[in-house]
Amino acid sequence: MPYERHNIARMTGYTPGEQPDGVDVVKLNTNENPYPPSRVVMETLRTIDGDKLRRYPNPTARPFREAAAELHGVSPQQIIATNGGDELLRLVITTFVEPGRPVGTVEPSYSLYPVLAAIHDTPTLEVLLDDEWAPPAPEALAQTWNDAGAQLAFIVNPHAPSGRLMNTDELAAVAQAFNGVLVVDEAYIDFVDPAFAHDTVPLADRFDNVLLLRTMSKGYSLAGLRFGYGIASAGLVEPMQTKTKDSYNTDAISQALATAALEGQSKASRTWAAVRDERKRVTAELITLGLSVAPSQSNFVLATVPDSFGGGAGAVYESLKARNILVRYFDADRLRDKLRITIGTPEENTALLKTLRDLL
Amino acid sequence: MPYERHNIARMTGYTPGEQPDGVDVVKLNTNENPYPPSRVVMETLRTIDGDKLRRYPNPTARPFREAAAELHGVSPQQIIATNGGDELLRLVITTFVEPGRPVGTVEPSYSLYPVLAAIHDTPTLEVLLDDEWAPPAPEALAQTWNDAGAQLAFIVNPHAPSGRLMNTDELAAVAQAFNGVLVVDEAYIDFVDPAFAHDTVPLADRFDNVLLLRTMSKGYSLAGLRFGYGIASAGLVEPMQTKTKDSYNTDAISQALATAALEGQSKASRTWAAVRDERKRVTAELITLGLSVAPSQSNFVLATVPDSFGGGAGAVYESLKARNILVRYFDADRLRDKLRITIGTPEENTALLKTLRDLL
Repeated sequence: MPYERHNIARMTGYTPGEQPDGVDVVKLNTNENPYPPSRVVMETLRTIDGDKLRRYPNPTARPFREAAAELHGVSPQQIIATNGGDELLRLVITTFVEPGRPVGTVEPSYSLYPVLAAIHDTPTLEVLLDDEWAPPAPEALAQTWNDAGAQLAFIVNPHAPSGRLMNTDELAAVAQAFNGVLVVDEAYIDFVDPAFAHDTVPLADRFDNVLLLRTMSKGYSLAGLRFGYGIASAGLVEPMQTKTKDSYNTDAISQALATAALEGQSKASRTWAAVRDERKRVTAELITLGLSVAPSQSNFVLATVPDSFGGGAGAVYESLKARNILVRYFDADRLRDKLRITIGTPEENTALLKTLRDLL
Repeated sequence: MPYERHNIARMTGYTPGEQPDGVDVVKLNTNENPYPPSRVVMETLRTIDGDKLRRYPNPTARPFREAAAELHGVSPQQIIATNGGDELLRLVITTFVEPGRPVGTVEPSYSLYPVLAAIHDTPTLEVLLDDEWAPPAPEALAQTWNDAGAQLAFIVNPHAPSGRLMNTDELAAVAQAFNGVLVVDEAYIDFVDPAFAHDTVPLADRFDNVLLLRTMSKGYSLAGLRFGYGIASAGLVEPMQTKTKDSYNTDAISQALATAALEGQSKASRTWAAVRDERKRVTAELITLGLSVAPSQSNFVLATVPDSFGGGAGAVYESLKARNILVRYFDADRLRDKLRITIGTPEENTALLKTLRDLL
């Protein structure tokens, strides 16, 4: 006899990208930063002693929250630290969504959102993006969610899997018109071209229903560490901080290393610039090869593969994998003819492009 | 306008024990192991490189699960690794409890259980322990939970906050009679006297509704690491492993260190013996001082403080704190005249006993 709840028995879990054990793989499938963490992170790691491991960590990662607050010009009460950004995505649903009320998203989007909603036994309301991966006008988008009674909505920005960027005026208009909590998942924000002067933090001060999600996984080369955080009004942070998060949700080592990573931001920002440079090159060369590529402000590009090219996206994915190059293929509507390719080091990108040329 | 759900707005969060930043405190309040982690753990920490941090970890901590499976003589499919034992407590509720159906517990018990139930918008059914902290007969206990429709129940064993041990026959009888999932929270099992030959792992093979919770926090001196695991039938583990846990719930460093800690078990087991020796001494001396102490198989003792002694438990707690000695005081029914005291190093215990003598 199965013991799990009906909604759990019915649902399908999230499938993470492949994480091969071998090191000889050109790994362009899960949007990791191709460069190592900053030196100050590794130095901090070497200072961890037995007493730090033996004792419980600070329950709210206070030293990290103070560092993040200073970096963003907000108060520590506006910061919540979580076990990766994924924990924050779960926490907002737990805290703000009555089961049965839909979670608003756009489609396509990060495929974890509907999984988290299903665990919570609540539906997902997906608003279709257009062919350029743009949502409807902000007021129309919010209205659709409002009409369905959504108490929470997710916008991943830059968008995944396309890399398209919504600007702050559009986000503000959505926040203004939406009745629930708007979570802007900014996992990839560090890779936005500085020319856009894209700064969303003022939204967290201006709107009491906006929560910005940040992660150390991509921008700071710390996917292995599992450390993310949220920026929002103190009122939005408080119930998660004091009630719904696990009592010791982040560990002592990751707190110390994440804090060090913020201090080493200038080093990290050089990796962001390198990724942007390579993004431009990879995009141009993919187009030269005959693929079409959505303009991306993230550390990946979404490339459409013509059926005439190596048998189409699914076949190219397999061919690359057979040559030890991993990219991401989504067997989903509107994505079956596409590959999501993480921007790697120049050497990795060159290996990918050369192999694609061979497949042509 | 508050955005949180009604049940979240209504509930009170869990209060973790104090975690002072200073190092001059004799910290006997949160049941940490007083001895450092084993050498192999610290050596493993020194081997972590940037690539391990940069990449996503194994999503299910497979190398750890293989090591734990070998240690316990079960299969890796019977092991789930979690971000501290706390995550597993939350996961079992998420996975097995329809909101509205009660979670069975005993009273008093770990005060986190009703908090987790409240987050899930479900009630807690607390069965009163007797004056020796013993539950009703196993069949009666299970029947009470069954009658209320409980799909899940928690037994912390050794019991917290008393340290009393239920034997495996009693646990088997509860599992047999209970219709739901029985979670045996064995956070403190490493401190049980080997003379009891207390081995619960066969229960996880024999009953498809038993889940054993273990943690590296206490027995392995790794509270700062946040790493726990469950042992159960593969059928019970599967929905949590593939559906309800966060996709990357444990990080690369803690996976490596927890695996190393299992390898260094013989070192850890010497700390368990030292704690047992000191538990015997502290118990005897507290009784000599005029307190009464429940027999404990854990790394703490629950001591009843007569009102005539230093003004009673609450006052003694404050007096100790003023002298930089932290113990745990629960302002709760049946516990207001008691202190829960973690067994520390011989020096720490002597400092506590001397200070208590001074307060007399």
